[in-house]
Formats: sequence, structure tokens, C-alpha cells
Amino acid sequence: MSYDAMVITAHPDDAEVQMGGTIAKLTARGLALLIVDLCSGEPADYAEPGVRAQQAQRAAKILGADRLILDGQDRLIQDTISLRLRLAQLIRDHQPRWVFGTAEACVHPDHAAVEPLVTAAVFYARLDNWDRVPGGEILATTEPWTIERLFFPHCKMEPAWGGSFNFAVDVSDTYERKKQALAEYRSIFEVDEGDQLLNLYEAEDIHMGRLFGVAYAEIFKAHSPLLVDDLTVFKPGLHG
Amino acid sequence: MSYDAMVITAHPDDAEVQMGGTIAKLTARGLALLIVDLCSGEPADYAEPGVRAQQAQRAAKILGADRLILDGQDRLIQDTISLRLRLAQLIRDHQPRWVFGTAEACVHPDHAAVEPLVTAAVFYARLDNWDRVPGGEILATTEPWTIERLFFPHCKMEPAWGGSFNFAVDVSDTYERKKQALAEYRSIFEVDEGDQLLNLYEAEDIHMGRLFGVAYAEIFKAHSPLLVDDLTVFKPGLHG
Amino acid sequence: MSYDAMVITAHPDDAEVQMGGTIAKLTARGLALLIVDLCSGEPADYAEPGVRAQQAQRAAKILGADRLILDGQDRLIQDTISLRLRLAQLIRDHQPRWVFGTAEACVHPDHAAVEPLVTAAVFYARLDNWDRVPGGEILATTEPWTIERLFFPHCKMEPAWGGSFNFAVDVSDTYERKKQALAEYRSIFEVDEGDQLLNLYEAEDIHMGRLFGVAYAEIFKAHSPLLVDDLTVFKPGLHG
Amino acid sequence: MSYDAMVITAHPDDAEVQMGGTIAKLTARGLALLIVDLCSGEPADYAEPGVRAQQAQRAAKILGADRLILDGQDRLIQDTISLRLRLAQLIRDHQPRWVFGTAEACVHPDHAAVEPLVTAAVFYARLDNWDRVPGGEILATTEPWTIERLFFPHCKMEPAWGGSFNFAVDVSDTYERKKQALAEYRSIFEVDEGDQLLNLYEAEDIHMGRLFGVAYAEIFKAHSPLLVDDLTVFKPGLHG
Amino acid sequence: MSYDAMVITAHPDDAEVQMGGTIAKLTARGLALLIVDLCSGEPADYAEPGVRAQQAQRAAKILGADRLILDGQDRLIQDTISLRLRLAQLIRDHQPRWVFGTAEACVHPDHAAVEPLVTAAVFYARLDNWDRVPGGEILATTEPWTIERLFFPHCKMEPAWGGSFNFAVDVSDTYERKKQALAEYRSIFEVDEGDQLLNLYEAEDIHMGRLFGVAYAEIFKAHSPLLVDDLTVFKPGLHG
Amino acid sequence: MSYDAMVITAHPDDAEVQMGGTIAKLTARGLALLIVDLCSGEPADYAEPGVRAQQAQRAAKILGADRLILDGQDRLIQDTISLRLRLAQLIRDHQPRWVFGTAEACVHPDHAAVEPLVTAAVFYARLDNWDRVPGGEILATTEPWTIERLFFPHCKMEPAWGGSFNFAVDVSDTYERKKQALAEYRSIFEVDEGDQLLNLYEAEDIHMGRLFGVAYAEIFKAHSPLLVDDLTVFKPGLHG
Repeated sequence: MSYDAMVITAHPDDAEVQMGGTIAKLTARGLALLIVDLCSGEPADYAEPGVRAQQAQRAAKILGADRLILDGQDRLIQDTISLRLRLAQLIRDHQPRWVFGTAEACVHPDHAAVEPLVTAAVFYARLDNWDRVPGGEILATTEPWTIERLFFPHCKMEPAWGGSFNFAVDVSDTYERKKQALAEYRSIFEVDEGDQLLNLYEAEDIHMGRLFGVAYAEIFKAHSPLLVDDLTVFKPGLHG
Repeated sequence: MSYDAMVITAHPDDAEVQMGGTIAKLTARGLALLIVDLCSGEPADYAEPGVRAQQAQRAAKILGADRLILDGQDRLIQDTISLRLRLAQLIRDHQPRWVFGTAEACVHPDHAAVEPLVTAAVFYARLDNWDRVPGGEILATTEPWTIERLFFPHCKMEPAWGGSFNFAVDVSDTYERKKQALAEYRSIFEVDEGDQLLNLYEAEDIHMGRLFGVAYAEIFKAHSPLLVDDLTVFKPGLHG
Repeated sequence: MSYDAMVITAHPDDAEVQMGGTIAKLTARGLALLIVDLCSGEPADYAEPGVRAQQAQRAAKILGADRLILDGQDRLIQDTISLRLRLAQLIRDHQPRWVFGTAEACVHPDHAAVEPLVTAAVFYARLDNWDRVPGGEILATTEPWTIERLFFPHCKMEPAWGGSFNFAVDVSDTYERKKQALAEYRSIFEVDEGDQLLNLYEAEDIHMGRLFGVAYAEIFKAHSPLLVDDLTVFKPGLHG
Repeated sequence: MSYDAMVITAHPDDAEVQMGGTIAKLTARGLALLIVDLCSGEPADYAEPGVRAQQAQRAAKILGADRLILDGQDRLIQDTISLRLRLAQLIRDHQPRWVFGTAEACVHPDHAAVEPLVTAAVFYARLDNWDRVPGGEILATTEPWTIERLFFPHCKMEPAWGGSFNFAVDVSDTYERKKQALAEYRSIFEVDEGDQLLNLYEAEDIHMGRLFGVAYAEIFKAHSPLLVDDLTVFKPGLHG
Repeated sequence: MSYDAMVITAHPDDAEVQMGGTIAKLTARGLALLIVDLCSGEPADYAEPGVRAQQAQRAAKILGADRLILDGQDRLIQDTISLRLRLAQLIRDHQPRWVFGTAEACVHPDHAAVEPLVTAAVFYARLDNWDRVPGGEILATTEPWTIERLFFPHCKMEPAWGGSFNFAVDVSDTYERKKQALAEYRSIFEVDEGDQLLNLYEAEDIHMGRLFGVAYAEIFKAHSPLLVDDLTVFKPGLHG
Repeated sequence: MSYDAMVITAHPDDAEVQMGGTIAKLTARGLALLIVDLCSGEPADYAEPGVRAQQAQRAAKILGADRLILDGQDRLIQDTISLRLRLAQLIRDHQPRWVFGTAEACVHPDHAAVEPLVTAAVFYARLDNWDRVPGGEILATTEPWTIERLFFPHCKMEPAWGGSFNFAVDVSDTYERKKQALAEYRSIFEVDEGDQLLNLYEAEDIHMGRLFGVAYAEIFKAHSPLLVDDLTVFKPGLHG
């Protein structure tokens, strides 16, 4: 099946935390979207084995997206050739115009591995002749695919201290659904630290939104510059 | 008269060099646009006094924009309170949604003065009670006006060395008109150095365009971050 | 009279918005603190002439600080030699160990003028022989004074987009007093935009606080690096 | 045994070179400190096998710290899952409040591997349920441990060219002990290049110190911002 | 055989694209230069197996350089200990004063691997006692070698967006030979995308050249700062 | 008289402190060099009026340079049109190929004014038709002059904290003369703070030198990138 966009993150709940409002916005306008988690997020605190995957499927449904959970090992995600190839295969299979992956600057090593992985996978997906590359056979039977844009949402576990972003998306109108989706992961977040994390995540979305005079915004980076046909698409700034 | 956008630069030909393709694009979709030059660009090499203003009017017409030439002195443009107030008055008079002014990092001191001037003018334009501020009377009879966005095109006289930009506009389809507009300033550019300058300007537009696989692009900075409702407005990158 | 610290900002309410929690914290431990506003903040929306100065004095009292309002003109604050000298005189008169002034990167031209002004004033304050400098006589009868550190709070009107800060102060325990002080300026903030501004300011303090697992934090820049005797003074980070 | 701080660097002498003065300062105030070298630093020029480990133990004693030398291979240190887990185990065993590791930007590949290794180890140390992660068993019998802060001293082999640091520690009063500790590694440094290296290291400490008007200072980076309760802990700058 | 300089890049044609003009310039003044490709660049579009290696040898000859093609696998180049050691061995064998390798910031994962690989290889090459390091035996029979400078040409596949460079080389007088060398790779570039790529590469060289008023320039980064005996070696800037 | 290079700084001793070794190096190879001080540096501590000018002339002689002291007012140097024009006139009169001026990032407001002043003066010097610009008459009788390069030495009063430089000059062989020149200003530096300042300045030169394995180096910035014909002019780095 073909999707308009793919969101590739390390664990179930990453896609929701980092860009849940944007996902809901894209699906609300009719785009088909696939969330790919590199692992099941197990072992998780406060959840029996297998529960998190069920939570994740319900959360995806709330956001209007499909979800695929790969069999990576939580905490041990690394940028390997075989995982690059697997992701390239998924990109070819689903032919998305947009791909998203957690931005690299993050204290969690699983999160930090996503940006180089997805960058390589997008690059591999458009190359030909994989039958002549060791291990590349998994790509040999599919057609090359070139995506339009690759964007990186903020991991939110860390300050954007000394950092920056390239654009924000106004998610005021879909934020309620983001919160509903996150609520599915209730067992992960139900203790003290969980509340603290949810507060942290929401504090960033509120702060970014207020910078534009809107309620909530999610931020993104890009490797290559932004090109537009029409600069009137940018929404008003708080002070121009 | 009200305009959708105002482009404020130091000299006639700056608007054309820095964002002529973008201007043509905006007017082509029916937006009303006013170019404001802070001075006449006199004394200019290779042109009799007064000629440059006529060239500028013809160039603006080619781009589909109106043009106003203020009586500043070429080479001596500075960020003064009175010029801020004069520009704020123009902004109130013409009620633009978008304002543009040359980005500050430039070897030409006239260009470097534009960004602080325009930034302050946009801020002044939205404040009330100017009758109670010395010199502010020129704003007292007009209504406060809040623009939507303020963007800064690149001065192009200098490398973007160590610098960056926030977005580019694909101007492939209006570049021919940009070149026609620049051709009006033929007496300025007709000698050796002129050719060198035109080549320099065009080399940047080509280089920026090729980074996206399009023919020509013009680049812009912004003080505050970019907010969009829909990130699918960004055009494809060369490699995602 | 001598003060331990001076906070120099453009308008009444700037000190409160930018570092009200830090001020309350310093005075709570017995330090004497003087707030210097470069102008009265008039004309202000929604307040009769003279009212804002009274609000400011009440707000300072809540924070435990004294306040001096200079006779600059709101909106027209600039970095001039005479204002540098006036501030240097105040620094000599009050012999503070710490001086604070709004960080330069701000859309409001009054705010942007504070950092160069205060930087020069601190430098002037420690030089000798002002009787031999035109205009310097106002410093000639006072003794040179060298402060310990100069810090710059964030103006908060703009995103810290692409920017950074050097340290934050945990103001969780004094934030209630900050809010009480800001409430004094009720006539300024009582309309829609006012609420929006207060929300914006508070959103930054919350967001910065959550990055450390505390309720509220205020951020600061410094020109020269931070030197400590004992690095155990740094409080825990959220992730180390 | 529990330690207040752990310093994790690649080779014996790294801890001394990079932050010997800070180590001596921390132990002088009664803190217990463990230096962990990832390898023995063999083969070293100008020292018989095994000699360097003895030098390292004497140097640690001079600084008042304990020392543990792991069995990594000099020159081949890399960021691997198993080494992350081993370091996480050490962190759990010794429950430090502060952890230090060489900053990544360094020409020596062993040094460059320390920052990602230590960052991941600190993160692993606080997670639970390692019995359910392949290879994680070595953490399964120990309790999760959350440190307070993670700091990165400068490798000193390279210029801080284009770089920066987050704070410096005044080590004027313990510098003599740093030099005594380094003198233990006499066989490594006794030839021409050695002198050159020691001069290079000391030149940075002197230069950094002079920027504050003190004799010697050591510099540190941090991933996440600095939070203080009391900004009066910062020592005077040379010019405020 | 000994060479004055070695250029280490991932694929045949990288050296030409990234710094072909500089190579021709160095060989024109009599320096001996070796290009080392980490792999054959196979599978390549539009070329039979083995053809690209022949093209590469002809291109090197046009530039006056020798060429060695290693047996790495296109698309799968990574920073491994064994490849570091192999490159260190080549550096020792050929004793270059200057080494070049593609700068890391590049969308192609093969290109991104070159900078850490070459940095480590240069470092390994100057160390002694490799017989006592596992796998280091391949260096044990050669003499340590210390190069003078390591520089990194731009990969050219990506914008220099937000980036910078340390110096440029005026290649106007050898650019014709660069184009001849690139023409050898005709089968790679003969389709649409090829033209697009060649245009992209040339657009950067033109743009960089025009910034100085010369026809073409190639840009380079360096890890450590530039030291000169005589700053009059820098050529004129367009505006000083 | 025509000079090969002009060094424009605020006060007598600035040229010596910031680039005395480079000046001595340029004059040693036969280049004619003019130092221009924007003011006499009066009132100075510890020197009778007029003494500093004499010291300055002797110091210039030691460095092999001529010196011109303008009549600006110490502490009150600002970027004004009239001073720009005066400096442009000097540049035209002396037709230097290289111009130097203190880099802007400095705590001393006089130093901070030099970079914009010199940048504008260099730009003014090459423009024609000054008889048609108010105040420009002082340039009307001289011929336009275009310099080759404009470089900015470091003010040295502040850390290069968070900053960077573009190249360094090895001044090991002329450093003795730099120290002799500085010794002429003995009355300024003879007290405690003076020693501290001289130590600070020298500490930077030593530190920068040691980064390359040489005794002393002075650092410079440039507005526009460095272009070379021959990259073999760069001296060895400590680690390549």
C-alpha cells in the first residue's frame, strides 16, 4: 500500500510526543500516513510485555495513521547497514512523498540513531542495481523511489539549548487529539516521572505556539534548505 | 492606496537584484506591491543625474510593481529615528501584509542600515499614542498597522560565507522578467565592473536554484521562526 | 546608597518580566537591589499618564527592590554617549557587584539599545580621569568602580530561535511574587494582547523550568565566560 | 564503594591533563573521586609495558583520587553497546553525583569516542528492567542510578578554534598538584614532543586563567544548560 | 613511491568533482599526487562493470595524478578500524605532506564516512609500536609519518546551507582540465540527472569564484586553524 | 606617500598589542606600513599628557612602521560619517594593498567602533563622484582606490569565548620586537593591572602559537573568505 508520509521513530509514543499534532493535521486533510517504530519500546516501566504495542495501535488510530512496529531492541538501536536497507525497503514499498525521523541531538542513544539511519535509508531508496551489492538483495525486487522532503521533529527530552529549528507547524486545532493519543500510553506515564515528562513535552509545544500567538506548535529541522513557490504560506509572526 | 507587500531597500536596483524574481512572482498572482528606495542612488557612475530614477520606474513597471524613491543620500543612509518614523508612516499608509528589507550582513553601509531601520519601522507602525512622543506626530493621524511577516533578502554583494538563510523562493518562471528589469539599469552596469556584478548576482541565483534542481532561486532570512499550517507547501529538495 | 545589584532595563515592567523571579530571590537573601528604568514607559496603552510609574514602584516593593525611573523617551531609547555617562555615574554612586541589562537580540528597538549602553557604562565606570574628557565631568567627582559580573536576561518578546543562553536560575520558589509584581501593571495587560503577552512570558519560564524538572526558570546570557570555584553549585539536569 | 564523582577518560594521563586541577580541588574539599581509564594507554612511547599503569596510580594518589584502569585497547576505543553497559555498571556501583568525560571534538579517535560512550552509559544507568535486554544482564542485579550532572573537559590536543565552552573552574590553588601528577608520567613526556605537549596543555590553562585575572583555569562543556540557585556563585570576569 | 599529496575520497569522480581544479593546479607545479578511491563506484548507473575504473584512470591522467582504487563496497563505506589502518599504511608508504578527504556534512553516507576515516588514518600514521596493537601489524613494518596539513573539500551534493568553509582555491586557470577529466565519466553523467549534477557542481564553482571576481573557485574546510608566515598570500576579495 | 599596508586602531598601543609581531614581520620583508591611531589615548593612567604620543612614535619605529595619531577623543570613538570619510581620504592618500582594523567583538566601545568605521572607509575609498555627496568633498580631489584585503586582529581584552578566527600568523621570529615596542608604553603598564594586561595579551599569543607547535601566533578575522592560489602556503598544524 502506498502512503503519503512515513514517520520513523525509535519507540511507540515517540511519533506522538514529537509530532502528534502534525500527524493528526496531515491525516485530517486526507493524507495516508504510516508510523514506523524501530522497536516495541520493551522493556517499559509500568507495562506488561505486549501492552505497549496495543497502546501504540490505539494511539495511531486516534491520530488517523497506520502503524508498523519493527523488531529492534529498545535501548540498543544503532545505525547499521541492515537496518538502513530494511527502512529503504519500507520506503520503496510505501512510496511516501514525505519522510520524518527524530532529530539527532538527543540524550537518548536510540533517538540519536534515527537521523543517520533515516537519512541513509532515503538515499538508498532511490539508488538502482542493489542486486549487485552484498545484502542489497532485499531492495532488488522493488523500484527505486525518490521522496520529496525529509524533516526531523525535535526529540523533546532535551532543551533546544544552543540549537534551532527550521520551521514550526501550528497544531492548535489538532492538539486535543495529540493529547488523547498520548493518554493511551497511560501505564508508561502514570507515575511521577511520567507526569513530569508529559508536562515537559507540552511545555515546549505551548512555548513554541505562544511565540506566534497560537496555542500549540511543533518544531522541525531539515537537512537541506526550504524552497517555496509562494512565501505567503508563512503564517504571521508575533512581531512580524 | 493599500499594497499587499512593500519592499524597502537602499537604492534603485537593490530590489531587483535581491528579489526581482520574487517580486514578479507576487505581482503575477495579482498582489499589489510597492518598492521603496531610501535614496535615488545618485551619484551613480555612468549615468547623468536623474536618469537612474527613470530607469527605476521602468524596471518597477516590468516587475508589475509601483515605486517610491525617498530623498535619502546615497552612501550616507543610517538608522535614524526620523527615518524609522517616515517608514512607519509609509507602512501605515499602505497597510502591507508583508514587508521586505535588505539583510544586514553586507559590505555596503547603506545596505547594512536597512535591516535595523525596517525592523524598527514595522514595530513603530503598530504602536499607538504617537502624539505623545516627540517627533511622532507624523504618525498621529494614521491608524496603527500590524504586518504579518518581515523578510530579508540577501544583499548579494558578499558571499553567504559562514552565513545561512531561512528559505528560498523558486523564481525560475519569472527570472526572465528579473533580467529585463535589471537591463533597464544598463548605464550602471555597462562597464566591466558592471558585468562582473551582474554575473555575481546571477551566479548566486543559479547556484541556489541548482541546489533544488530548479533553474533559479532567491534566498531570504527572517528574524522570527517560520510557522506553517501545512508543511506540504515545501518544494522537493535535491536529495530529500 | 550602595546596592549589591542593579537591573537596568528600558521600561517599567521589563525588569519584572525578564528576571522578576531572580530579583525576588536575590532580595530574599538580603541583597540590596536597584531597578533602573531608562524611561517611564509612557505613552502606554490603557493607562493615564503617570499611572505606570506608580505601578512600577509598587511592583518593585513587592520584589523587595528600590526603583529609579530615568527621563528617557519610550520608543526612542538609543545608545548615546550621554546616556552611557549617566549610567556610569549611577553605577559609581551605587557600587553594585552585579549589573543586569536586557540582552540585545530583541524586536523592540528600546530593548536592543540596552545591552550596548550598559556594556559601555560598566566600562566607563571603572576608568579614571574623566575630568579630561568632554562631557565626562559628571563622572569626575566620583570614584572609579569595577563591578564583578554583567549578565543579560532574555527580552522574552521573541523566540530564542537559533539563539542560546549561558545559564538559568531556578525561580520556582519566588515565582508567585513575580506574578504579583506583574499584576500591578494590570492596566497595561488587561486587554487581549496583554493576556497574550503574559502567557508568552510565562510560557518561556515554564518551558525553561521543565527542562530541569523544576517549575520555573529565567535565562541569562553573559559576554565573558562563567568562572566558578566549585562546579557542584550547578543544579541537576533532567538527564544529567 | 560509593564516590561523589567519576572521571571517565580514554588513557591514563587524560584525566590529569584535562582536569587535574579540578580533581584536586574536589578531593581537597573532601569529595571521593574515581578516575576510570578505558585502557592502559599501552603501547606508549618511552615506557616499558606496565610502567604507565604504575605512573597512573601514583598520579591519582597525588590528586587524592582512586583509579580504575579498564582493559580497552589504546587507539581502538569505540562507542560499543558492551562498553556502554560496562560503564553503566560502574556508575551504578559507585553512585556518583557528577560524571565527567572528554569532550568529543578531538583529533584523537579514542578521545572522540568518550563523549558518546559516557552519555549513553549515564542514560543506561538510570533505566530499569535490564534483565529483559540482551547483554543487559550485567546491569540486572544493580539498582538504577541517576546522576546529577555530566560535564565534558576539553581534550587539549586541539585548538578550541571555532568552539566554545560552558564554564571554567579556577584551579590556581591546586595547579601545583596538577603539575606534580603530570610529572609522574615523566617517561611519556620526557622527549621533545612531550615537552611540546606539556607546554601546549599548560598554555591553555594559563590563557583561560588570564581571561579572568586568575593564574589557571580548566574549561568544560555540558550537554544541557546550567541551572543555578544563586548566580552570585560566578566569580568576577576581567571586564564584568 | 613517495607523493607530495594524497586525495582520499569514496568513489571515482569524487576527487574530480570536489577538487579537480586544485589537483590540476598542484600537479602543474610539479607536485606528485595520488588519488585514492575507497571503492570502484560499482554498481553505477549507465556503465558496464569495470568501465568506471577505466574512466577513472583516464581522468586521473588528465589531471596529472596517479590513482589507486581500493576494494571497498560502494554505498556501504563505513568508518572501521581496519580501513583506518589500511589508509594509515598508504599514508606511511607514500609520505604525503598534504592529505585531502571529503568533508563530512553530506547526504551520501559513503561521503560522510570519509572525514572520520581519514582523520583517524592520519593520526594512526604517526604513532609508533603498532606491533603491540591487535590488527596493527600492517603498520609495524613501516616508519611513522607525520603529514603537514589535512584539508576537506566540499562534497557538492548538498547546499553549503548554514555551513561555511575555511578557504577557497582559485582554479580558473585549470578549470578546463577539470571539465575534461569529468567528461571521461560520460556514461555516468550522460542522462538527465547527470546533466543536472554536473550543472550543480559547476554552479558552485562559478558562484564561489564570482565572490572573488575570478571565474572558478573550489572550497575547503580544515579541522585546525590556518597558520601562515605571510598573509600577503591571500588573493584580493571582491570588496576587500 | 604610498604604503603597502595600513593598520587602523583606536589607541596608541592597540596596533602593538593586537598585531605587533605581524607588523614587524611585514616591515622586515621591506613593506612600508602606516599605523593610524584614531585618538591619542589620553587621558591615560600613569602618563602625563603628551607622553603617550611620544611612546607611540618610538614603538612604531621599533616595529619599522610610520605612525599617524588622529585627534579623536579616547573613550568616545564612534562610527560617524565624518570619520569614515577622513579614513577613506587616508586610504586614498596612501593607497595600501592591505588594511587592518580591530575586530568588533570587544568590551571596549572604542575598539568595537573600529570595524564598522574601517569597513565603511574601505568601501567609500573606491567610490567615485564624491563632489556630489554632502561632506564628501574631502574625497573629491583624490583618486578612488581599491584595496586588496581587509583583516581584523583580535582586541585581546576579551576571551575568544564562543568566537573564532580565520587565520593566524606565526610571529615567533619577530616577537622579541613586539615586546620591545610594548615596553615603550611602560608608564601605562607599570602598575599591577598593567602587568595583568600584558600577561593576558602574551598568554593568548603563546596559546595560539602552541596550537601549531610554534612559539607565538597572532590571530585575524576576515569579512569575506580567504582565496589562495596555492594551498601549500599553509604551515603545518600540530595534528595535521
